[in-house]
Amino acid sequence: MLGPRRGWQALRRCVSLPRAQREVRLRVREALGAREPAGEVKVQGWVRSVRSQKEVLFLHINDGSSLENLQVVADPSLENRDLTFGSAVEVRGKLVKSPHRMQNVELKAETIRVVGPCDTLAFPLKTKERHPLEYVRQFPHLRCRNNTLGSLLRIRSEATAAIHSFFQDNGYVHIHTPIITSNDCEGAGELFQIETSNEAREPAEKTHFFDVPAFLTVSGQLHLEVMAGAFTHVFTFGPTFRAENSQSRRHLAEFYMVEAELSFTESLEDIMQVMEDLFKTVTSTVFSKCPRDVELFHKYIAPAQKTKDRLAKTLKNKFVIISYNEAMEILKQASQTFTFKPEWGCDLQTEHEKYLVKHCGEVPVFVINYPYDLKPFYMRDNEDGPQHTVAAVDLLVPGIGELCGGSLREERLPFLESRLQRLGLTDAYQWYLDLRKFGSVPHGGFGMGFERYLQYILGVESIKDVIPFPRFSHSCLL
Amino acid sequence: MLGPRRGWQALRRCVSLPRAQREVRLRVREALGAREPAGEVKVQGWVRSVRSQKEVLFLHINDGSSLENLQVVADPSLENRDLTFGSAVEVRGKLVKSPHRMQNVELKAETIRVVGPCDTLAFPLKTKERHPLEYVRQFPHLRCRNNTLGSLLRIRSEATAAIHSFFQDNGYVHIHTPIITSNDCEGAGELFQIETSNEAREPAEKTHFFDVPAFLTVSGQLHLEVMAGAFTHVFTFGPTFRAENSQSRRHLAEFYMVEAELSFTESLEDIMQVMEDLFKTVTSTVFSKCPRDVELFHKYIAPAQKTKDRLAKTLKNKFVIISYNEAMEILKQASQTFTFKPEWGCDLQTEHEKYLVKHCGEVPVFVINYPYDLKPFYMRDNEDGPQHTVAAVDLLVPGIGELCGGSLREERLPFLESRLQRLGLTDAYQWYLDLRKFGSVPHGGFGMGFERYLQYILGVESIKDVIPFPRFSHSCLL
Repeated sequence: MLGPRRGWQALRRCVSLPRAQREVRLRVREALGAREPAGEVKVQGWVRSVRSQKEVLFLHINDGSSLENLQVVADPSLENRDLTFGSAVEVRGKLVKSPHRMQNVELKAETIRVVGPCDTLAFPLKTKERHPLEYVRQFPHLRCRNNTLGSLLRIRSEATAAIHSFFQDNGYVHIHTPIITSNDCEGAGELFQIETSNEAREPAEKTHFFDVPAFLTVSGQLHLEVMAGAFTHVFTFGPTFRAENSQSRRHLAEFYMVEAELSFTESLEDIMQVMEDLFKTVTSTVFSKCPRDVELFHKYIAPAQKTKDRLAKTLKNKFVIISYNEAMEILKQASQTFTFKPEWGCDLQTEHEKYLVKHCGEVPVFVINYPYDLKPFYMRDNEDGPQHTVAAVDLLVPGIGELCGGSLREERLPFLESRLQRLGLTDAYQWYLDLRKFGSVPHGGFGMGFERYLQYILGVESIKDVIPFPRFSHSCLL
Repeated sequence: MLGPRRGWQALRRCVSLPRAQREVRLRVREALGAREPAGEVKVQGWVRSVRSQKEVLFLHINDGSSLENLQVVADPSLENRDLTFGSAVEVRGKLVKSPHRMQNVELKAETIRVVGPCDTLAFPLKTKERHPLEYVRQFPHLRCRNNTLGSLLRIRSEATAAIHSFFQDNGYVHIHTPIITSNDCEGAGELFQIETSNEAREPAEKTHFFDVPAFLTVSGQLHLEVMAGAFTHVFTFGPTFRAENSQSRRHLAEFYMVEAELSFTESLEDIMQVMEDLFKTVTSTVFSKCPRDVELFHKYIAPAQKTKDRLAKTLKNKFVIISYNEAMEILKQASQTFTFKPEWGCDLQTEHEKYLVKHCGEVPVFVINYPYDLKPFYMRDNEDGPQHTVAAVDLLVPGIGELCGGSLREERLPFLESRLQRLGLTDAYQWYLDLRKFGSVPHGGFGMGFERYLQYILGVESIKDVIPFPRFSHSCLL
């Protein structure tokens, strides 16, 4: 197998080798990037179009390494009936300068071998058709051969790599936080529970595999906090789960979260700075590594939303910061009538979030210092009554609402003890209290939903279209 | 927050800044790496030892950025009763050249602030003690502040990053394969089943959240194959699950797998080449990025196993390849008596694997071409009766046994159809058959257990000690 780097090295080396060894296997992306087309190459991929003229046969082939196809030019005698849209081919020939304006090189074929034919009548994708996302969602095992999904998954892959790099470059230790956990997050009731298949079949004789009820994680935060007490800067990037039985475009049962925790924080601004840096660094990287893939979304999927211009502005400017109190003032003075009346002490609804973002000029907005009684026990008390708040922060973005949520964590043992006692959770969180007894330090962290992030930067309407395998009505699991 | 890169840039820039802005926050690793100690710095971390002499106070502080501590030298007047082992401190002062042979610099303290005191009597870790791994496993929330676990988790983090880089550098697209799946892998009976907490409480009224029974994935292979049919080179690196109720040192209910699939393969050697490249690249990267952390394991945890020398040899030489048939000949001619008699058609037991590895000189050994009836339906038929085999491969390594497993996949529709029909699985795998109708190409892939990999390169005896949070007797979930 020749990767993009080794492929090119091999191509450069090949000039003086004897013929049998001179053939170099190139990915389509490598072939398209060739500056000095030379030597015999082999390109493999799937046919995206066949155009047979009297004197010449044109093929477009694609192997998923880029959105663009490689044009193959061949003698019509090389045509055969299996050479159709969707078939897999191996083409040997020479890369030559293309006379066409849109491409640098084309492949002048010497041989074309159909490796795997395609039953075009049964194949749900059609040549040169822009299938709607809802249509291709019906074919979870084939839709990745559609242009849009191809671009999406390359972007998702680059964003994943960029997230890992961002944290590594900044000295964070990566932690695999547990997926199966006994922590039920205060019985929030939206959990998936785990049992062995045998237990599921014979519920009468139920004994737990793990001795205690076990659940799929909803967040790695508490486990990350443990690690921040040893490494100061830690992150995780893995699957999280919510059994919310909603059919909305905003929720998935299984989704990915980026979470980070840092110790020795001085204020909430330390957390916001990391959120902002993460967003800007990853987005810039994705835009520069997959320009054509990103363009496809901004041009055909979300053109009305002006996603591209908005994002360019966002990457340049500092994010806006307002307090929850200020947010309430803004909402109360709004001329708009809300379904949920804005009231101090109540959570921000999606309609409120959208209004605030619009009010600030359709840019990302940090809202900080939320009511104490609205937030979980681990958030740090601001000691600022009578409008008692905690050092929490949400990042709201245009078109989405909440993208990230974070807070300073309560590092002071007496504060945490009395709060857990009032909630009757002291026994369950004894280990968490323990952490405050042995060199406890101010710390905080945040989480960012990866699918929402992709929805935001690409302008994709349904969250079901930014995951590798679509799930609709909870039923299509594959 | 200043990461390793920005920290140093800031330190270099700081010379001409006014005093109030001159203070630079450094991680311990950055401070230790300082070549030209200059300017005022702030270092934060946890005290690993306090040594009070008449004229001078010595502290060692650690912040998890490296195994090595930073030595702080202070006037005895800076001592206070909260300054104990385990406490969190913030030290301001100047980095100066150290008179000691073992360290380049030390921190001459101007102020020492105890950020969080430590209840040393209750703290289960003791200063300057090498606690056995079994001991620290009892404290899942505190053991990461132990040297060995600190080193392990830094290594695990570097290995994770190196795996992502290896595949990205070689043109692979990263795919998040589903964690919750309806694919039960032919009722292997070792699965975890998922239900909502409500379903678990009221099993009588059971309706499935996903309409069909849903399980935790045991492998992302089949989903990756879908993607290999669009991108040619894909990989995943995520959690997988087995409900094997064993208490062994070799198995976990939740563990990580690296899996890759590649299209347009020519032979099983294509797969083995990637396995070998992956192993060598990731191991070399980890050894060069965390030399001291790796040394700790090779010196104190597994010295008897000569892990270090063996691995140096392994990284230099080509891995050995033998066929299953050859393996059987070797085992039958062995002077050793096995508990399980080696017999053609039977699976290799751990005792067999260990013998084969020893026979080949304690190096990694690929065993290829296993009996047809021993392997799953998707492996490619070698059509070589009467000793009928499939193009499967296992990589065996010293001290562990099987580290990786892979195969060519059956890309030919008629072969796959007749095999699934015989197994009565045609309906369940209709989508998998479908893939063979639309441009099917020769392809294959493999999986590597990440925890076994760490066990192997570090010589750690129990798999429970290479995960961030230990789980023993299935019961300590945290």
